[in-house]
Amino acid sequence: MSSDTICALATAPGGALGIIRVSGSDAFVAVSSLCSVRCNAVAANTTHYTRLVEYDAASQLQNIIDEAMVTVFKAPHSYTGEDSVEISCHGSRYILNKVLELLIQHGCRMANPGEFTQRAFLNGKMDLSQAEAVADLIASTNKATHDMAISQLRGHFSSQLAHLREQLLKLTSLLELELDFSDHEDLEFADRTELRNLVKTINKHITHLAHSFETGKAIKQGIPVAIIGKTNVGKSTLLNRLLHEERAIVSDIHGTTRDTIEDTMELQGITFRFIDTAGIRQTTDEVEQIGIERTYQAIQKARIVLWLIDKEPSTEEISSILQHTEGKKLIIINNKIDKADNNSYNLLNHPIIPISAKFGTGIDALEQAIYQAADIPTLTDTDVIVTNARHYDALVRAKKSIQRVIDGMELQLSGDLLSEDLRQALDTLSEITGGQITPNEVLGNIFKNFCVGK
Amino acid sequence: MSSDTICALATAPGGALGIIRVSGSDAFVAVSSLCSVRCNAVAANTTHYTRLVEYDAASQLQNIIDEAMVTVFKAPHSYTGEDSVEISCHGSRYILNKVLELLIQHGCRMANPGEFTQRAFLNGKMDLSQAEAVADLIASTNKATHDMAISQLRGHFSSQLAHLREQLLKLTSLLELELDFSDHEDLEFADRTELRNLVKTINKHITHLAHSFETGKAIKQGIPVAIIGKTNVGKSTLLNRLLHEERAIVSDIHGTTRDTIEDTMELQGITFRFIDTAGIRQTTDEVEQIGIERTYQAIQKARIVLWLIDKEPSTEEISSILQHTEGKKLIIINNKIDKADNNSYNLLNHPIIPISAKFGTGIDALEQAIYQAADIPTLTDTDVIVTNARHYDALVRAKKSIQRVIDGMELQLSGDLLSEDLRQALDTLSEITGGQITPNEVLGNIFKNFCVGK
Repeated sequence: MSSDTICALATAPGGALGIIRVSGSDAFVAVSSLCSVRCNAVAANTTHYTRLVEYDAASQLQNIIDEAMVTVFKAPHSYTGEDSVEISCHGSRYILNKVLELLIQHGCRMANPGEFTQRAFLNGKMDLSQAEAVADLIASTNKATHDMAISQLRGHFSSQLAHLREQLLKLTSLLELELDFSDHEDLEFADRTELRNLVKTINKHITHLAHSFETGKAIKQGIPVAIIGKTNVGKSTLLNRLLHEERAIVSDIHGTTRDTIEDTMELQGITFRFIDTAGIRQTTDEVEQIGIERTYQAIQKARIVLWLIDKEPSTEEISSILQHTEGKKLIIINNKIDKADNNSYNLLNHPIIPISAKFGTGIDALEQAIYQAADIPTLTDTDVIVTNARHYDALVRAKKSIQRVIDGMELQLSGDLLSEDLRQALDTLSEITGGQITPNEVLGNIFKNFCVGK
Repeated sequence: MSSDTICALATAPGGALGIIRVSGSDAFVAVSSLCSVRCNAVAANTTHYTRLVEYDAASQLQNIIDEAMVTVFKAPHSYTGEDSVEISCHGSRYILNKVLELLIQHGCRMANPGEFTQRAFLNGKMDLSQAEAVADLIASTNKATHDMAISQLRGHFSSQLAHLREQLLKLTSLLELELDFSDHEDLEFADRTELRNLVKTINKHITHLAHSFETGKAIKQGIPVAIIGKTNVGKSTLLNRLLHEERAIVSDIHGTTRDTIEDTMELQGITFRFIDTAGIRQTTDEVEQIGIERTYQAIQKARIVLWLIDKEPSTEEISSILQHTEGKKLIIINNKIDKADNNSYNLLNHPIIPISAKFGTGIDALEQAIYQAADIPTLTDTDVIVTNARHYDALVRAKKSIQRVIDGMELQLSGDLLSEDLRQALDTLSEITGGQITPNEVLGNIFKNFCVGK
């Protein structure tokens, strides 16, 4: 385990303040050499006003770099578990660079992305899935992504995994018990019933977690929505109407810069991502036949399809759309209800939402329909949604091992054959929280996408 | 004086961490309502790990917003002089917005730009010129701008102004003494000699400060440099050469994003700003006659002019250039010394710097010449350079008042006539540090260019 001392800017450059983090066995020495705070001597978790100075050998004077606040955290009661210091200086590029430069001169090195959190993991402050939740939390931009990350950071996923491991261990012990008493045929059958029930419970639990990844991915990446329909049916007007409403809400709070995000809207804390669809054009030789081929791709990528019409479509059209949107949530929208010649009607008993994209009529009902179509379960504080492809991959592999155990039981295989697969399932689940020794390569891959300073 | 409670994001959005500042009489109540830290009860300058929570009336549950560090500062020992709290949360846009939203629900309001520093001024933590230095410090991008801001923040300018005010007060007392003894003609003449010496010292000091503004402005805005010369003489190659060297240095430190700055270079902590000059072209009817008119404007804006040649210019050319660069620092550069037919020569005893922009020969010597031409005095820690147009304006007005005192003395005006101008000079100097009551309008103008959160 590396114990050298790392430093990094933990805030984005450009603000009024900038925070530089320092962590490692020499953190106190390095920081104390820049200022009058004797980090070793002061109480933990105290903040001190000080001048950051640089000794200039040429003039034999101390140049003042900044007036700053220095907060001292003592091992093991720090984020990383090591001696750590946070220096809060003015957010000048010159000052921040200078302070980092001086820290490096005094024995620190620049931290790698996520290295503070990696140290927190290595020092047992959190498990691997919690460490990953930190990056998700920082990246969270709405309530849903935030809530999933907070739940994972607070260890709800970890405790479900711990429960699963307990059950797998119980299964293993039962199998070992069976091995010990393998002469007694009666005993075997009695145990096997309990074993079967237990393994099915485990299988159900893992399957449930693995399935949640679809929801987790949709929440994390935004739910893909395609708007299809003929040209001039009002697709762009509708899109602008949906996006515009949202933009006004987002810009309510001053002092925050909104990233440039194109064509996404948020409804009740969920991000919906609009897929670029080329308008469906009518070609002269195929009048009344929708050029549906052009939107196949958009529909394939979508989870929700908004089909915009402005007059009653033909039966062929309807059956073509229904066929191509199978497995997708289809919302049929009748636009331009402000026009006199556009009347309400039903299509094959499929509900139709009447709107006027131009005047904003019916948009609330449409948004409600879109939100419902997303079918995102209301999460309570302790619900677990898998959001990480690495975790999903491990769950799928664990599920395969469990399936082999189930199959083996059907085939009346002996306990020692089954226990190999059980061990495999246990090891695979441990990968998620990093309970086993995690190879450096795997750790490197996990932390490389973090921001520097965390 | 406003005592409501303000909050703002003090760091740039987008980093691993974000700091939210809260200041005012209700700061402790507002922050304590979001977390378990009883700000009133804990010791000043202590940092506490806590969960930020939102009470959800619908579910009657507490939603966890973040795991954060809360640092408590107690009046008057805080930046603003008020009760203050800094909340260090994860840098997620959602979290930062949510925390600000909750603080506002609990009685805070969003701070105006510079409002924390404005409160520091109003509460006597710093004078107005120091408050202005805070904004300059945050904006500083190199050693020179940083050092000027630190000097001003540390009160060196303020103490020189205090000294000037003392001398003006002494002058006023001497004049009053003279008035009291106005019957004694002898006394008057004796005093007037001392008065004259004193007023001349004051005048010299104010003049010196006002003059420093030219340097201050040049350092703050970057020193304008024009590169002139015929087409194909290598102006672009030279510019790239000068800029390229710098860019490599700036990108040495990881983790900092460099703003997109075009055509500036830094030499020994000073920024040089290149003025776009259209290349000087030879027209067929004016062969050998430089199209100097086209670069008049560039030369006018410049403080330093680099005249690039690649063969011996004619006497007319030389005199034309010398005439138009009068009052500017002119550096003549002989480029393409790598070519066999380009020999060194002297021009009217004006030194010429031989370089090869293409191969980088002579660039160090050229940079040294540019730095020297900037004629920036080496600043010691206590040197004062005026960098602020508001201060310069006040100094110029104070100087005019002093000049009227000097003129009045020449005319043997009586003391009561002189003391009016002296009072004016005193008041004008007080504007700089805000010693007098500063009108809200003036304060508003000063702080509106600050960043939010400072």
